[in-house]
Amino acid sequence: MTRIAVLGAGRIGKIHAANAAASRHASLVVVADPFGDAARSLAEQLGCDAVSNPLDAISRADVDAVIICTPTDTHVDLMLAAARAGKAVLCEKPVDLDIKRADTAVAELEALGVPVMLAFNRRFDPSSIELRRAIDAGDIGDVRQVIISSRDPGLPPLDYLKHSGGIFKDMTIHDFDMARWLLGEEPVSVMAVASRVVESTLSELDDFDTLMVIMQTESGKQCHINCCREAVYGYDQRFEIFGSRGMLLNENLRPTTVRRYTAEQTESRQPLLNFFLERYADAYRAELEAFLTALRDGRPMPVTPKDGRQALKLADCAVESVRTGRMVKVD
Amino acid sequence: MTRIAVLGAGRIGKIHAANAAASRHASLVVVADPFGDAARSLAEQLGCDAVSNPLDAISRADVDAVIICTPTDTHVDLMLAAARAGKAVLCEKPVDLDIKRADTAVAELEALGVPVMLAFNRRFDPSSIELRRAIDAGDIGDVRQVIISSRDPGLPPLDYLKHSGGIFKDMTIHDFDMARWLLGEEPVSVMAVASRVVESTLSELDDFDTLMVIMQTESGKQCHINCCREAVYGYDQRFEIFGSRGMLLNENLRPTTVRRYTAEQTESRQPLLNFFLERYADAYRAELEAFLTALRDGRPMPVTPKDGRQALKLADCAVESVRTGRMVKVD
Amino acid sequence: MTRIAVLGAGRIGKIHAANAAASRHASLVVVADPFGDAARSLAEQLGCDAVSNPLDAISRADVDAVIICTPTDTHVDLMLAAARAGKAVLCEKPVDLDIKRADTAVAELEALGVPVMLAFNRRFDPSSIELRRAIDAGDIGDVRQVIISSRDPGLPPLDYLKHSGGIFKDMTIHDFDMARWLLGEEPVSVMAVASRVVESTLSELDDFDTLMVIMQTESGKQCHINCCREAVYGYDQRFEIFGSRGMLLNENLRPTTVRRYTAEQTESRQPLLNFFLERYADAYRAELEAFLTALRDGRPMPVTPKDGRQALKLADCAVESVRTGRMVKVD
Amino acid sequence: MTRIAVLGAGRIGKIHAANAAASRHASLVVVADPFGDAARSLAEQLGCDAVSNPLDAISRADVDAVIICTPTDTHVDLMLAAARAGKAVLCEKPVDLDIKRADTAVAELEALGVPVMLAFNRRFDPSSIELRRAIDAGDIGDVRQVIISSRDPGLPPLDYLKHSGGIFKDMTIHDFDMARWLLGEEPVSVMAVASRVVESTLSELDDFDTLMVIMQTESGKQCHINCCREAVYGYDQRFEIFGSRGMLLNENLRPTTVRRYTAEQTESRQPLLNFFLERYADAYRAELEAFLTALRDGRPMPVTPKDGRQALKLADCAVESVRTGRMVKVD
Repeated sequence: MTRIAVLGAGRIGKIHAANAAASRHASLVVVADPFGDAARSLAEQLGCDAVSNPLDAISRADVDAVIICTPTDTHVDLMLAAARAGKAVLCEKPVDLDIKRADTAVAELEALGVPVMLAFNRRFDPSSIELRRAIDAGDIGDVRQVIISSRDPGLPPLDYLKHSGGIFKDMTIHDFDMARWLLGEEPVSVMAVASRVVESTLSELDDFDTLMVIMQTESGKQCHINCCREAVYGYDQRFEIFGSRGMLLNENLRPTTVRRYTAEQTESRQPLLNFFLERYADAYRAELEAFLTALRDGRPMPVTPKDGRQALKLADCAVESVRTGRMVKVD
Repeated sequence: MTRIAVLGAGRIGKIHAANAAASRHASLVVVADPFGDAARSLAEQLGCDAVSNPLDAISRADVDAVIICTPTDTHVDLMLAAARAGKAVLCEKPVDLDIKRADTAVAELEALGVPVMLAFNRRFDPSSIELRRAIDAGDIGDVRQVIISSRDPGLPPLDYLKHSGGIFKDMTIHDFDMARWLLGEEPVSVMAVASRVVESTLSELDDFDTLMVIMQTESGKQCHINCCREAVYGYDQRFEIFGSRGMLLNENLRPTTVRRYTAEQTESRQPLLNFFLERYADAYRAELEAFLTALRDGRPMPVTPKDGRQALKLADCAVESVRTGRMVKVD
Repeated sequence: MTRIAVLGAGRIGKIHAANAAASRHASLVVVADPFGDAARSLAEQLGCDAVSNPLDAISRADVDAVIICTPTDTHVDLMLAAARAGKAVLCEKPVDLDIKRADTAVAELEALGVPVMLAFNRRFDPSSIELRRAIDAGDIGDVRQVIISSRDPGLPPLDYLKHSGGIFKDMTIHDFDMARWLLGEEPVSVMAVASRVVESTLSELDDFDTLMVIMQTESGKQCHINCCREAVYGYDQRFEIFGSRGMLLNENLRPTTVRRYTAEQTESRQPLLNFFLERYADAYRAELEAFLTALRDGRPMPVTPKDGRQALKLADCAVESVRTGRMVKVD
Repeated sequence: MTRIAVLGAGRIGKIHAANAAASRHASLVVVADPFGDAARSLAEQLGCDAVSNPLDAISRADVDAVIICTPTDTHVDLMLAAARAGKAVLCEKPVDLDIKRADTAVAELEALGVPVMLAFNRRFDPSSIELRRAIDAGDIGDVRQVIISSRDPGLPPLDYLKHSGGIFKDMTIHDFDMARWLLGEEPVSVMAVASRVVESTLSELDDFDTLMVIMQTESGKQCHINCCREAVYGYDQRFEIFGSRGMLLNENLRPTTVRRYTAEQTESRQPLLNFFLERYADAYRAELEAFLTALRDGRPMPVTPKDGRQALKLADCAVESVRTGRMVKVD
């Protein structure tokens, strides 16, 4: 039974706290949030303590592990604080928006030797797990091309976007991680284009809403990613893995399998699950269990801060490619 | 918080007990099974008491409701015992194999006025709920035809079949209930054919393995049911609702949406979920919550012993139709 | 090169005439229709002669084969006239509405020994051919159940219905033929229900618009047919073949494979092909080629008047079952 | 009735010749091929003349239009010869492998003012037409991203590859044309990666077997193309059009809609149509009819040599991008 503190009581914090409270392998001890009300309300609902200062949660003797769901710019400090206190860590993506800070953090975390997992939830979606399992089983031979489509249902509020770090680091970072994981090799070159076809005023933030990336590995495997901040038909999350002996595709999820035929619609289905909290509900649960299992068994974490750093690096390269119009080599 | 006793620690009892233990609206107090070991093992796992005599569980002061998962021939006695003790009841199907005993039981249960729900789990499957919702919303106009395909993955053991009451009362009874529920009207005539194309020795039990039914309501709505005890591709559960303004279909469930293309297979999917415990895991949970909600709100049970009696009656009519080669009128 | 006369210049006659004119293995010599204008207009378009009396077309020395597309009550006389004149025959369904006349005609046609094919076009649809091929190849083992869904887009004009012979002989007769062909055995018992949920005034014609049939063969194979004269979503034609080693399903056809996602519709497709002339365009071509090939090679016709008689017999049995509320044995 | 000469009796020539012979709006007059036997055999089968010198076919007084299906390096000369002789032209892609020769040819052809159509067959596939129609109808709002997957079933013979001009000009050129057509705008920047994961010895030809492209238009619309010379599951041809109000997808074609369920496969379908002659059979017919219709009506050709030149330009840009690792601006 791992005793858990959840730092941050926003929408992701709530998910992790509820999953920790419901897990057979964890007990939720405390929730921390500077907005005391948010923490108190969540704690009351789940039957645990509430504090406003995350450091107070980290330092508690009855806490074995912390889940960091606070704003991005606090990730590094809180990971390090927890790790220095000897607490295991599950930290939301990204490590940081700055690659140098991320590098420094990764180095110190590795030196501390405390178990730290980065929360790339999509790797734990049942479809993703089946894709990876089938690849590992050799069902499609050698991977040749990976195609990732990733579109959000709607543009986030401007206020969110201002602090997001830009679409590549905020949204596409998930796809960069999936690309690495599904390719099974590190991309060595990155090319990208980006535009503002949803919201032209994003130019003021030096940000984009629509993008395409292509990457290639040393051995010649290729990956394409496309993203858009707005898809009227909902949260679109698809993967295609093309290999020497076959191809794997997943589909978007819907609430049920019901299909409808009317005079106006033929074979239409229910709308896609919206948004990530709903679409990846199973993945968040499986992610936490994977963390708890690795902890319990003393085995390596399935996703590491280094993975977070690599995804960030690819995002940086893509941004540079858009800026320079060149292929960017990944160091 | 409804305090629950589960009677019977077999495969269905285990499901209900686990769901009761995990529900926010229930606490599992005791599990009863004449095989003391089964009850003890389950109780230990879920943190509740164990007894061998179901009546001891029913009579406990700290039990508000009982879930009956014992063999069919004990259903009537245990429902009555619980209802007489003032305990709410959720009872597995069927009420009984004998329509007269079922009639007597239903009459006494109605007279006692205690909340009793019959556990037709398929009504609570998310797909079924969406089908019913869409019908109620008028999405397909007036229902004209309902088609139910229902095939088990494999023949049960002979020992089970001997006491099953025959395929119509054991297996098709679920489909008779769904037919009534989806038609929204009572069938008034039943015709059926049945054969033994899977296992010819079922003739010794006067039983069948493969059947087709057609039924019609007073207003002319029609329903077809087909069943088989064995489908090599897995547990097949499909509904088609055809109405004056459209059609609804559901599909079988699979673990994920992944599709596979190889030199040998094009667009093949993962195998169907097997068997009912896995396929209807969500339905069992929703069924228990519906029971608890109706109890809490003092509202009528969503499925009643009378519903169980009606499904049994249709099964009896179908058996008679097979025997006589006639359309059988439903009294 | 088979020289062909087409009798009847209605919508089916036009299809056959155009296919004959376009075939590499046939030449269209003459079109006959009592409505001289219809024949002339078609003949002009396709570059052949036109006559008003079908017997004049049959007797021409430059005609090897006749395709009969005239009203049902002329089928027997024209088949016999052509066969007596030594001309090969492709005749539209049904042989006749009266089983005794059909029996007499079949007997004389068999005695004459002239090649006569009955035009059950659905057997020649590419999907049907693939279903039959897969069954014959043993892909799904022994057939256990066949399910046929057959719904027309809309009620025909009352004037058509008056002379149609009723839904079982006019519409379901195609499905009875497919049932025999896909089962690979003769049904020995028939049960049916029928109602008027589309158009209640059909009671004046002693006709129905919505029906369900179940049939069983000697060895216990079963078949279900459902029909409706009106489906708002279009012409619905589906088959399911369930066997000891698997299941085969076909889907309705659409103009293209395009799928659409919008805010209102998810994954909807183009409307179904409407009506039989469009849906079975390929089947009509393949049917004619099968006729020509059998003629050229001197091999048995793929569908015979006897097949037409058997389908008619099943329709008669179904009508009797509706009337009597009994299972009807097929003599 | 347009009188047609087909130049080249290879696999594409055969298709065009057969379609011309079968069309109601054309008559096939002569087939020309330096390999006299190929021309004679085809001419005999289709009932037309045969010559060995294409110029002899062009100069015939009874020829209104020529279809050029000869090797790529003869396209420019034969187009010009036919246009100078006042004959309408339908020419297979590409215009030429050299952009300068293409530019010169396009200029002269435009000056001559003779109707010349370039044969980008994929625009005439029923699915493509429906995609374009739906875009034009505003069904998905403004196009934002186009994704084209294009994989051949297997590597062509080395001998073919040597003269192919490389994968970008030989194979991807079709996709560049579709990109322009579906985007509805000209790409202004091109980035590409390419590798040899199917056949490493392609390095000797300075060619590739697997590639990814991203392009962007002035207004920020984006397009991704992925190609591979070998897909074990067959000829893969898919389009995705993502717009401000929805998304359109097409699927690969199969011979029928039959789906199969067995113990080993769930819902698998028949293999994809292989190869382009079969997959695009309808498109080749529609392409010819579009050519004949434009000729007859004196309207502009639906695809022009200029379109061929633009696709070639994009291919050149992609090759340069692979070579330089830079985004290449399209002049």
